[in-house]
Amino acid sequence: MWPDRRLLELLGIDVPIVQAPMAGANRSEMAIAVSNAGGLGSIPCALLDTDAIESECAQFRAQSSRPFNLNFFCHAPPVADAAVDADWRATLASYYAELGLDASAPLPNVDRAPFDDAACALVERLRPPVVSFHFGLPDPELLARVRATGATILSSATSVAEARWLAARGCNAVIAQGAEAGGHRGMFLGTDISTQAGTLALVPQIADAVDVPVIAAGGIADGRGIAAALALGASGAQIGTAYLFTPEATISRLHRRALDEAADNTALTNVFTGRPARSVVNRIMREVGPLAGAAPAFPLAAAALMPLRAATERHDRSDFTSLWSGQAAALGRNMGAAQLTNLLAREALERLESLR
Amino acid sequence: MWPDRRLLELLGIDVPIVQAPMAGANRSEMAIAVSNAGGLGSIPCALLDTDAIESECAQFRAQSSRPFNLNFFCHAPPVADAAVDADWRATLASYYAELGLDASAPLPNVDRAPFDDAACALVERLRPPVVSFHFGLPDPELLARVRATGATILSSATSVAEARWLAARGCNAVIAQGAEAGGHRGMFLGTDISTQAGTLALVPQIADAVDVPVIAAGGIADGRGIAAALALGASGAQIGTAYLFTPEATISRLHRRALDEAADNTALTNVFTGRPARSVVNRIMREVGPLAGAAPAFPLAAAALMPLRAATERHDRSDFTSLWSGQAAALGRNMGAAQLTNLLAREALERLESLR
Repeated sequence: MWPDRRLLELLGIDVPIVQAPMAGANRSEMAIAVSNAGGLGSIPCALLDTDAIESECAQFRAQSSRPFNLNFFCHAPPVADAAVDADWRATLASYYAELGLDASAPLPNVDRAPFDDAACALVERLRPPVVSFHFGLPDPELLARVRATGATILSSATSVAEARWLAARGCNAVIAQGAEAGGHRGMFLGTDISTQAGTLALVPQIADAVDVPVIAAGGIADGRGIAAALALGASGAQIGTAYLFTPEATISRLHRRALDEAADNTALTNVFTGRPARSVVNRIMREVGPLAGAAPAFPLAAAALMPLRAATERHDRSDFTSLWSGQAAALGRNMGAAQLTNLLAREALERLESLR
Repeated sequence: MWPDRRLLELLGIDVPIVQAPMAGANRSEMAIAVSNAGGLGSIPCALLDTDAIESECAQFRAQSSRPFNLNFFCHAPPVADAAVDADWRATLASYYAELGLDASAPLPNVDRAPFDDAACALVERLRPPVVSFHFGLPDPELLARVRATGATILSSATSVAEARWLAARGCNAVIAQGAEAGGHRGMFLGTDISTQAGTLALVPQIADAVDVPVIAAGGIADGRGIAAALALGASGAQIGTAYLFTPEATISRLHRRALDEAADNTALTNVFTGRPARSVVNRIMREVGPLAGAAPAFPLAAAALMPLRAATERHDRSDFTSLWSGQAAALGRNMGAAQLTNLLAREALERLESLR
């Protein structure tokens, strides 16, 4: 039925679809729907505290006996730099003035905890079947502890060099994240987005470079994309943006509306968090970005945006709101996550059949 | 055999492979080899004068009775701006000094003639089976004259909006040029490369938007890429960089050497001509680009680079040389253009067969 069963067997799933973990945009409800439909559901942990992660896991297990994935960020914690922060606030000062906000007020905390000892202890306790990382891998000692739980370990590569690096450190499969992908680039061996490759170019090169299964990510939103991923040598596809159109997505109405206008109109930007991520283009990206030299290190750039975002969202505007989207949002369909997973799998198989 | 015969029937070819016209990098020899192997060979005319185009056509017809494509640029002719030119020379002044060159010497002429009345008259005389354009389409009157010759007309779209624009003006097929592609972006409705989409995301959206056959371009260098293009809804693939590895490519040894080191290392740059084009990253791109605000309009930026290029190439260095390459150069194989065409077609069919 599926031409490549390596990923299905590695993960214990029925259809070669990984629901992308989307911090802030999905929780266990989406993961449950996708896993119960035979794919791999993912619970993003980057914005959750220990209790919330534990609760999401419990909810998943109450409603599904299928495999699931806990996803963690493993960036280096940023070192706050007062001069950089001041520069960033100066860059944004005119917006504070325009909105009548106090530019000297203390900023909210935006820590996204990198995978640390506490998170690792949680993984040891929860024993998720799959653990995926973004921005590389945690320290070898932490990684060894995750591996010792028996978890299958995944991470994203945005270049051939990163794929080799991940495979050499024991990743069980590599997510080849092409430049089309929405949200944060997983890049960790470099910071230059100008050389980031598209999915169609990246996947076969990574498939040639590593022995483990490759999961194609970026720009895949229907059965044609999944069939193409398999043609390129991937064993499966990771899909994010298409799932933002499901009711299980925990995104705002503003974000949903932006996705409907995303065609030809997304860009990689660092203005929202300090790291490059793909969003539907909006005012702050046009006027300050999309790549701002003044943006503080991830995730500190987010802090000074939050008051602007809150003040404008109240008036139904997304001028300062991150509107994560990949480049294939125009292919999105409004339906439940389980229904979408079934449809994607059926479309992909029909597409493969039609290509004989 | 081939799952989609629309492009084969439109162009009168046997395998759904269009050899990308690569100005400066191929002439009739490559086109003859590809067309005789059943694909569509292309003769790029942007750097050729009328006599040379006529001669290349004659050579093609002496050695092949198969269809072929004449490709023209149809950019708006640049208006020279003394202040911009001076700024560009100032940007490059330190390199002139380093190489002991006279920064005040008159610059060479770098006109790339856009498709005009004379070129159109040539098409009317030569009657090529296929005419393709880059940077949009010529004026309606010229386009009508080309159409009246009976030529099949192609052009490149880098967005859904551009694809719709081309189809509405009577293009018989649309080349969906993803961001992976080497050489010049065909973009003509906008200049912002930050929103340019990758091939995997772009092709299905364009296939949904237009009724004419779609030719996928960008990042396709082996049978996997062709199979993926067909899976995405394209009727064929345009392939450039893979053909730079053939002896028929009229590129320098320096360029060939750069292609061997292109993996993870190409970027879109405007430093060589003033328009964004993908090249292997080299010194001038790193130090002045990849996108330089100071670069004059296409093709005028090239003029001030030429003395630098000549002086360094003499010492076997490509610091100032355009090294056009797509993002899949690592998949390139050294073999003749006919042999490569046969191999690509066989690989694609085998790949499609293996996906059942």
